[in-house]
Amino acid sequence: MNMIYFATSNPNKVKEVQEILEEVEHFPFDHNEIRSDDAEEIAREAVEAAYSKLKKPVFVEDSGLFIEGLKGFPGTYSGWVQKKIGSKGILKLMNGIKNRNAEFRCSIAYIDENGIKIITERCKGEISLEERGKSGFGYDPIFIPEGNERTFAESIELKTKLSHRYKAIIELKKYLKNKA
Amino acid sequence: MNMIYFATSNPNKVKEVQEILEEVEHFPFDHNEIRSDDAEEIAREAVEAAYSKLKKPVFVEDSGLFIEGLKGFPGTYSGWVQKKIGSKGILKLMNGIKNRNAEFRCSIAYIDENGIKIITERCKGEISLEERGKSGFGYDPIFIPEGNERTFAESIELKTKLSHRYKAIIELKKYLKNKA
Repeated sequence: MNMIYFATSNPNKVKEVQEILEEVEHFPFDHNEIRSDDAEEIAREAVEAAYSKLKKPVFVEDSGLFIEGLKGFPGTYSGWVQKKIGSKGILKLMNGIKNRNAEFRCSIAYIDENGIKIITERCKGEISLEERGKSGFGYDPIFIPEGNERTFAESIELKTKLSHRYKAIIELKKYLKNKA
Repeated sequence: MNMIYFATSNPNKVKEVQEILEEVEHFPFDHNEIRSDDAEEIAREAVEAAYSKLKKPVFVEDSGLFIEGLKGFPGTYSGWVQKKIGSKGILKLMNGIKNRNAEFRCSIAYIDENGIKIITERCKGEISLEERGKSGFGYDPIFIPEGNERTFAESIELKTKLSHRYKAIIELKKYLKNKA
């Protein structure tokens, strides 16, 4: 498989991906994402911008936590919301809301000379009643994947197997293999 | 004074502004704003985009509610956050937070053949303990301007006099008059 590039400003994400997809190199890319509730739309616009600069096969990813009882909040703004109000803020907002269903969503947009491929993977679950666990980051301490009792932050193995981002990268790997 | 254009997707905002500045026409403009915590930066980028299409004197405005105890949340994302969690969500987030200081901020970016002028006006106040009043929109029912006891939604006169947007338009009017 030929080298492909991961356009992101976050080198930690590149390391995570390289454990699954060895053929990935970092394209440092500080792009002002568009405002949208749709992770696919954000990824599509960003990868087109990256490709117009790099002119080599490249992908971007956009992830978020979508909570049903909060109309999809924090969604595509999950990173920014985490910095401002944290997981504790989300728990406050969930006070008095019975529907605690939520999903992590990861959209990858890959582009090469043949065009764009969009991959979206989900991990369904619910918001816990309190923060639990120390591993991971972001909303991991308040997210319990479907069929489990522990949060992502209580079990890094759980997160690795079920994670939206992991599943999306696996799908990208399959896609590239079939293309080759 | 010559005609100037207000670039916005919201015709109601145009009507509001025309009560103060008669020489304003609507430039329907559905622009994907950049992501930033800084209203001035958002307005500056947007007005440059508007000017490159219109090529006539034009301004944009970007407003938000910045709450000290929430690290500036919801800030430049105020409109989106209002749609998702509403003023009730903000009150939940304020539970247990002693510092209820907040400010409405409005940045206007005006551009003509001589360049860009940025105007930012503020209205300081605090977040009320519960929603009060029916007039206005958005966060008006939970915002009490400094030195007052009523919320913006309890007194439309209060809002008109003290509003960040009103003050910014008045400043723009002065600036245009001095230029003429």
